[in-house]
Amino acid sequence: MNQNRQAPIGVFDSGVGGLTVAREIMRNLPSERIVYFGDTARVPYGSKSKEIVLKFSRQIVRFLQLQDVKAIVVACNTASALALEEIKKEIDIPIIGVVEPGAKVAASVTKNKKIGLIGTKGTVHSKLYPEIIHSYDKEIQVFGQPCPLFVPLVEEGWLKDDVTVEVARRYVTPLLEQGIDTLILGCTHYPLLRSLIQKLVGDSVTLVNPAYETAKELERLLKSKGLENLQDVQEEFPYRFYVSDAAEQFQDFANSILPYDVKMTKQINIEEY
Amino acid sequence: MNQNRQAPIGVFDSGVGGLTVAREIMRNLPSERIVYFGDTARVPYGSKSKEIVLKFSRQIVRFLQLQDVKAIVVACNTASALALEEIKKEIDIPIIGVVEPGAKVAASVTKNKKIGLIGTKGTVHSKLYPEIIHSYDKEIQVFGQPCPLFVPLVEEGWLKDDVTVEVARRYVTPLLEQGIDTLILGCTHYPLLRSLIQKLVGDSVTLVNPAYETAKELERLLKSKGLENLQDVQEEFPYRFYVSDAAEQFQDFANSILPYDVKMTKQINIEEY
Repeated sequence: MNQNRQAPIGVFDSGVGGLTVAREIMRNLPSERIVYFGDTARVPYGSKSKEIVLKFSRQIVRFLQLQDVKAIVVACNTASALALEEIKKEIDIPIIGVVEPGAKVAASVTKNKKIGLIGTKGTVHSKLYPEIIHSYDKEIQVFGQPCPLFVPLVEEGWLKDDVTVEVARRYVTPLLEQGIDTLILGCTHYPLLRSLIQKLVGDSVTLVNPAYETAKELERLLKSKGLENLQDVQEEFPYRFYVSDAAEQFQDFANSILPYDVKMTKQINIEEY
Repeated sequence: MNQNRQAPIGVFDSGVGGLTVAREIMRNLPSERIVYFGDTARVPYGSKSKEIVLKFSRQIVRFLQLQDVKAIVVACNTASALALEEIKKEIDIPIIGVVEPGAKVAASVTKNKKIGLIGTKGTVHSKLYPEIIHSYDKEIQVFGQPCPLFVPLVEEGWLKDDVTVEVARRYVTPLLEQGIDTLILGCTHYPLLRSLIQKLVGDSVTLVNPAYETAKELERLLKSKGLENLQDVQEEFPYRFYVSDAAEQFQDFANSILPYDVKMTKQINIEEY
């Protein structure tokens, strides 16, 4: 347990996608320091097994605890879906994922009780989103659709491309045919496709972005535990970034997402943790 | 050094793609046993750094040496381009990659001395293909094009899809505009897109498949070292498969590529090697 209110929040993802979550925390909790870890040597997690995702996540949590974080945000839907429940039992600082806040809001938003979920294979097949949604309302139907091409399309930079529109159309059509009125963007890369997806599904479908909901949930959690930082941060740049592969590529992507110039990223050997 | 002619060949890849190389070895060298390793926990290597790809490759080579292999085939273009040269100096059994055999044949096939190369970012940016091609003929021009969407499209199973045609068109058009008469399929997944790519580039462009050339090169190498197996193999199934993540998914893909029913795949912890 780390009761130091000024300690940083640990945030991790399989790679760069979790920066969309970090961005929401920076916007909504400007007094909080952040230590971000991106597992760029072993990215992606989306099509890997529960066993491997749990193993990798445990190594990262050990690394973050050594950075004296006061709380951890699993900024990766796959790791939240496959590893969070186990890890929660193993550590004594608060830890939250992106699935629960996203599922909770989706359950409260839907009117016709039909929710669509797009994400990686790992996230969709884990069934964690429907489980949590059903804890709020058993009558809600959840229709899942894995979208393995979205992450490479985003990383190729084809955010408004005709190819991406066509791929997205194939992924969302079966969900629209089910009559969903709410769609969860269940992978941290997907908010970057938000406007393209919104155009395809139309205004009658509400998009839920778990990144934003997670930042709000973190704020509530820190307050309830008496852990929120009450002082202004002194440093000009209170964020530290770590990766498991070369830092340069990460920085390029980080600088395209974050409203800051990410200059200092450190590479570490995550297999040692 | 392992002089046992009946010892297996070690073959490795970042995941399932190297099975297209294993398939060519099975077809062309039916008396050879094979130990295949696919690094499915850390796949893909294509956009990772030289340092990380070298580290992962060294771990796998150590694992294969413990299986008493008599020679190693790096059945991954990225690892061949980024790690092979270093590892060659560190071990005492013969080791070959897919880049050199592919580059050699491409250099002998081109008539107008303009070769196109498609592959991962790691392979194309490494410049190893042009270096080897220039060792045969300095006048040949090599035009590289990274194709990061091809592997996810193949793994999605969209081998003849309109989306894949459109993506491929964008990748090969700049190469055709350079007037290439030869195109190297510089990633082990790409032979599965062979007919689609051939249709796009037309019959005047010769496709080079490094997988096939590597099997022929391995045959010559084993003969020159007195290492080829002269006896028929006794086992009904002389191939063993190891992976670093869940075996089931690997088997599904393996069974779609190989003319055998791959039943036995074993998962190991590659970080321990």
